[in-house]
Formats: sequence, C-alpha cells, structure tokens
Amino acid sequence: MKRITLLLIAVTLAGAVFTATTSRYAAAQEAAPIFVKEIPAGYRDWKVVSVAHEAGELNDIRAVLGNDIAIKAYRAGKFPFPEGAIVGRIAWSYISSEENNKTFGRDQSFVAGSPTDAYLQFMVKDSKKYAATGGWGYSSFDKNGKPTDEAAMKACFPCHQAIKDRDYIFTRYAP
Amino acid sequence: MKRITLLLIAVTLAGAVFTATTSRYAAAQEAAPIFVKEIPAGYRDWKVVSVAHEAGELNDIRAVLGNDIAIKAYRAGKFPFPEGAIVGRIAWSYISSEENNKTFGRDQSFVAGSPTDAYLQFMVKDSKKYAATGGWGYSSFDKNGKPTDEAAMKACFPCHQAIKDRDYIFTRYAP
Repeated sequence: MKRITLLLIAVTLAGAVFTATTSRYAAAQEAAPIFVKEIPAGYRDWKVVSVAHEAGELNDIRAVLGNDIAIKAYRAGKFPFPEGAIVGRIAWSYISSEENNKTFGRDQSFVAGSPTDAYLQFMVKDSKKYAATGGWGYSSFDKNGKPTDEAAMKACFPCHQAIKDRDYIFTRYAP
Repeated sequence: MKRITLLLIAVTLAGAVFTATTSRYAAAQEAAPIFVKEIPAGYRDWKVVSVAHEAGELNDIRAVLGNDIAIKAYRAGKFPFPEGAIVGRIAWSYISSEENNKTFGRDQSFVAGSPTDAYLQFMVKDSKKYAATGGWGYSSFDKNGKPTDEAAMKACFPCHQAIKDRDYIFTRYAP
C-alpha cells in the first residue's frame, strides 16, 4: 500500500534477475491474481484504524479503515489477520484551512480536500488466492474508481515485505 | 471545539460587559448545562467525517467522527443537524514514522501517536438543553477520560459562532 520509489523498483527488478528465490517470486507474481476488480462495498462506513499525513509528492492526508474482521483482529492485537480481513485507506489532498486558521488566529490547520489521484487502496486477506504476495491482494483506485494497472500493483508487496512481523500491514491501530 | 486564543477570550468577555445582547448570552451561559458528564458510548466505532492536522501548540493529527444521526445529515447535506446528532473528534500526537520513512526512502510520513491532553471532544445536539449555545453541548476529555473543567468549555461556543451557517460545525464531510 506504500508507494515505491523508482529506485526501489529498479533494485527489486535487478534482484529478480540475479537470485533464484526472487526469480521464483517473480514467476509466482506473474501468475497471481491481484485484487483490482472492484472497490469493497461499504468501505466508507468502516471503522477507523488510524490517520496519517504523507508529505512530499503524495501530499495527502489519509484515513486508514478496516472492515469488521480487520478491526476485530487489530483490537485483539492478533496477527496474522484472519481470512476476509480488508484494510483500506482513503487519501485526500492536504490543504490549509483558511476558515480554521482565522478562528485559531494563526496558520496551523490542515484538512482533507478533494480525493487524490491514488484515492483508494485496499489490502484483502485471502491466503490461498494471494499466496504469492503474503496472503494479501493489493488494489488501488483513482478518484473515478478506475483501478491502477496491474503492473504497478506488483510494486506493493516488495515494500510491504519490510513489515512481515505485523502481517505486512504498516498502519498500527490508534487508541 | 476550536481552541480560543486569549485575545478572543478577552474580546468576548469585554463585549459581554458593554452590550446588552452579549450580557444576556453570558447570563444564559451561566445557567446552561454543558455536556461533560460522560464520553458517548461506542464513539470509537463511529464513521469518519474527515481528518485533519493541527500544527503549532496542538501538534496533533485527528479523526472527526459522527454518530449515525450526524453522518446521515452530513451525507444528505442537511443543516441544521437533527436532535441526537453527535460529532466527535479524537486527537493523537503528530509523530514522524521512521518505519514508513525508511520504506519511502525519504522523510515524509507522519502518523498518529499517543492520545493528546485534549484527546476527545464531542458536540451533542439538543436544541432545548443547549439552547444558549446554538443547540449544541460541548465536551472535552483528556487521555484518562477526565472532563475539561466547565469554565474552559465556555470558550467553545464563541468560536463556533463563526460558522453558524453550517450549524456551528467546522469540519466538512470528506468524500
């Protein structure tokens, strides 16, 4: 669910050429389905896992939500997540609020603006279907609901591998 | 729900002395109950209205949530909010995520840390009970669930009056 730098892509691809393990992984990726077909129903009603701000190129402010299966696991602190868990994130443009600043009497307030180009992302737990990518299918949709092309989605898992201990999910539950 | 500067407090108090209207308002404030008794049950399960970052002294990242009555009104774009609507906000400390930055390859990621001193705030719609403050009762709780003292809560409404057109609620619904 994290954006990968071109450098990281290059490193990953280069690695695939030189190591047998990575080659096998790459082959599995070729065959593996990636969850891009549809936006999970009712996601906007899901409970909050946490919130974050990504500065830099992304320049967004985001809510990370979970379906009931995911939230239950988060609250219990139980990893790996059970089958059917879905973790989603909504990213809005990060904008300064003149209205709020006027009330505060200083420039301090940043709020959610319109949907970003990478508006929606979801990780869907299905250990069999997505066995090649840690049991998670990855998906991303723009503000018009158009899925990101499958080639780009292959960049998700290599980054998320960094966080295998927490079942590949970066976001921690906020109290 | 917005923090007031000392200047604004001074202006409000000074105004109360010199205008009959404001004096009446101040008298009503004295008598008006302020919703500080308890944290609304189940608020952590509520749906997301929006998210924000307050820099400066507050230095928090926050989720604004609504109970079902509030969310329904927000989505319908119907103001004023109906009786029973509650809008809440959770504020966590605004912290840099080393883990995320490492993955992104640059310092760009800010996430929710521990609860802040002004952890929870709620506005509760009850037009009769809170008639003196625009039909909303205000409340604030620290990380231990202790309500903010009533005197401080009197500072809420004067700021929220700026946004009477949207029934005194600053936060707009994020798509």
